[in-house]
Amino acid sequence: MRIVVLAGGVGGARFVRGLREAVRWWHPEAAIDVIVNTGDDWWLGGLRITPDLDSLLYTLAGQNDEQRGWGRVGESERVAAELQAYGVTPEWFTLGDLDLGTHIARTAWLRSGASLSEVVARLQQRWDLGGVRLHPATDDEVDTHVWVASDAGGEHDLHFQEWWTRYRAQLPALRFEQRGLAAARPSAGALAALEAADVVIIAPSNPVVSIGTIVSIPGMRDALRAVAAPIVGVSPIIAGAAVRGMADACLAAIGVATDAGAVARLYGPRSGVGAAVGAGPAQPGLLDAWLVDEADAAVVDGLRADGIATDAVPLWMRDLDSAAALAEAALQAGLARRSAS
Amino acid sequence: MRIVVLAGGVGGARFVRGLREAVRWWHPEAAIDVIVNTGDDWWLGGLRITPDLDSLLYTLAGQNDEQRGWGRVGESERVAAELQAYGVTPEWFTLGDLDLGTHIARTAWLRSGASLSEVVARLQQRWDLGGVRLHPATDDEVDTHVWVASDAGGEHDLHFQEWWTRYRAQLPALRFEQRGLAAARPSAGALAALEAADVVIIAPSNPVVSIGTIVSIPGMRDALRAVAAPIVGVSPIIAGAAVRGMADACLAAIGVATDAGAVARLYGPRSGVGAAVGAGPAQPGLLDAWLVDEADAAVVDGLRADGIATDAVPLWMRDLDSAAALAEAALQAGLARRSAS
Repeated sequence: MRIVVLAGGVGGARFVRGLREAVRWWHPEAAIDVIVNTGDDWWLGGLRITPDLDSLLYTLAGQNDEQRGWGRVGESERVAAELQAYGVTPEWFTLGDLDLGTHIARTAWLRSGASLSEVVARLQQRWDLGGVRLHPATDDEVDTHVWVASDAGGEHDLHFQEWWTRYRAQLPALRFEQRGLAAARPSAGALAALEAADVVIIAPSNPVVSIGTIVSIPGMRDALRAVAAPIVGVSPIIAGAAVRGMADACLAAIGVATDAGAVARLYGPRSGVGAAVGAGPAQPGLLDAWLVDEADAAVVDGLRADGIATDAVPLWMRDLDSAAALAEAALQAGLARRSAS
Repeated sequence: MRIVVLAGGVGGARFVRGLREAVRWWHPEAAIDVIVNTGDDWWLGGLRITPDLDSLLYTLAGQNDEQRGWGRVGESERVAAELQAYGVTPEWFTLGDLDLGTHIARTAWLRSGASLSEVVARLQQRWDLGGVRLHPATDDEVDTHVWVASDAGGEHDLHFQEWWTRYRAQLPALRFEQRGLAAARPSAGALAALEAADVVIIAPSNPVVSIGTIVSIPGMRDALRAVAAPIVGVSPIIAGAAVRGMADACLAAIGVATDAGAVARLYGPRSGVGAAVGAGPAQPGLLDAWLVDEADAAVVDGLRADGIATDAVPLWMRDLDSAAALAEAALQAGLARRSAS
């Protein structure tokens, strides 16, 4: 069995770690490929930073800082202080020392002509990810910018990382702009993984700037819809609140309610279309099945009526066991659709 | 009074620090400009490393590690271990954490289009160098390679840093090759400093790969010979041995004895020519005056006869006071030539 997951950073990493555990227990023959969001990536201090790929790499390698929730365990910040003293990085974004090793290696390889996919493959060679393979959604640079209202009237944009990290997503976003999107293509590894997939899972990641960015890469939505395998989504919203992160601020910017049902309709049933965002046309839908938390059981019937096979399950990933149980539920929802079709 | 020094790394840094002290005591109106060797520079792990410029920067800023003799004081090596684990840097060259901050800043600025001179100016803004201004000898990349005999016969080249750091200059060098030299030009800051100079001092740095590289930049030797100011050299050799570093291995490669007199003749009297190196023609000479150690007093008369005003003085820089005394002796040797002319 080949399982493909679409994932953003920290939440996606926890889900995939749970999935890996579920596979270890119940499907030891299964392979896991993860298509990872690259829309949060940016250049800082001359280095290419890929936060979501790193969250997955560190978490699956057991190198992540569980307490802090991001970055490397046992991290220090000696170099960051130097970079800030020289004025090459802002005071609101700190690069840890161990983390910088990854950024320097990545940038060196990129500068020498390697694609991001090749870089990710090389980084994975150092660590044992327990059989999970990571693929950037695209090898092309598509950096997300956020448009906000200016104090003096009018509007201006800032890089997603500044909006997210410096302003904690508290500046109301007017819209998101994915720079370079039109010329981007899905990575070969992502496409190959999808073609071979037996089940596709959309992790409970930010539906706008993580999953939304992945599926907005030209060709990615078509590739997803072309897979014979069922596509199962896991809600990133529980009882009207983001499981983690600031998905509510992102959803608000595109006019979608912070609600498990609204996110399902944003993705849309595979037999229909997703919600139209901004001035764009409605896009073909993605979901065969959808998992919401038991607290959101009220949305199940409506979504089913819309063509999305929805179930309510415990959605909180409190620990590895609950994450594995959730991942197994997603997997079973997909497998049920496969045998049903 | 405007003093210009030609200098390599650690030895040059100690000399300039002594000169700064001498100026503080006896010539508070004087300005010091240092033209720094860039022939040891290289790309490593996607970062541009400039060892001699950094030695001067750190030493003059009081940030150098006196015990170890190079790098930053209080240094750690957490990132270096990461880089070696990823395989982007070799195990024989360790980049300290604090030092990496400088390399990342430099590389970011270079990548954004700044010249090395602009980078050096920005780095100096952070530190108080006590009025000393550093200039790279050239803004162009001229990396030194070393040709050595191959085990299987024939010969091959390696980067100077590998020869110097990994092999401790113990592989007999057949010759040095400065890649990119023909297209290189002296930096504007170096030329402007020379034009305004009242006295030029050649520091007791490696005469082959530091001073030799500076004066081999097309246009630099002419610019030096065009200055009205006297040019005073300080021997890097005392009693047949290098004061520090591995100058003997470098001198052997170009067929010059490790001898205070031989180095003076390599540079040559300004009224004549220097020693021919390899198959190249003899170059116009540089020296008006030359300081050797009292242990080398025997060479004084011969050099004087050759047109180089030579004096024997205490040459060891044991501490700041002795370095200041040596620098003052070099300064006075120059000023004596100026009033004599």
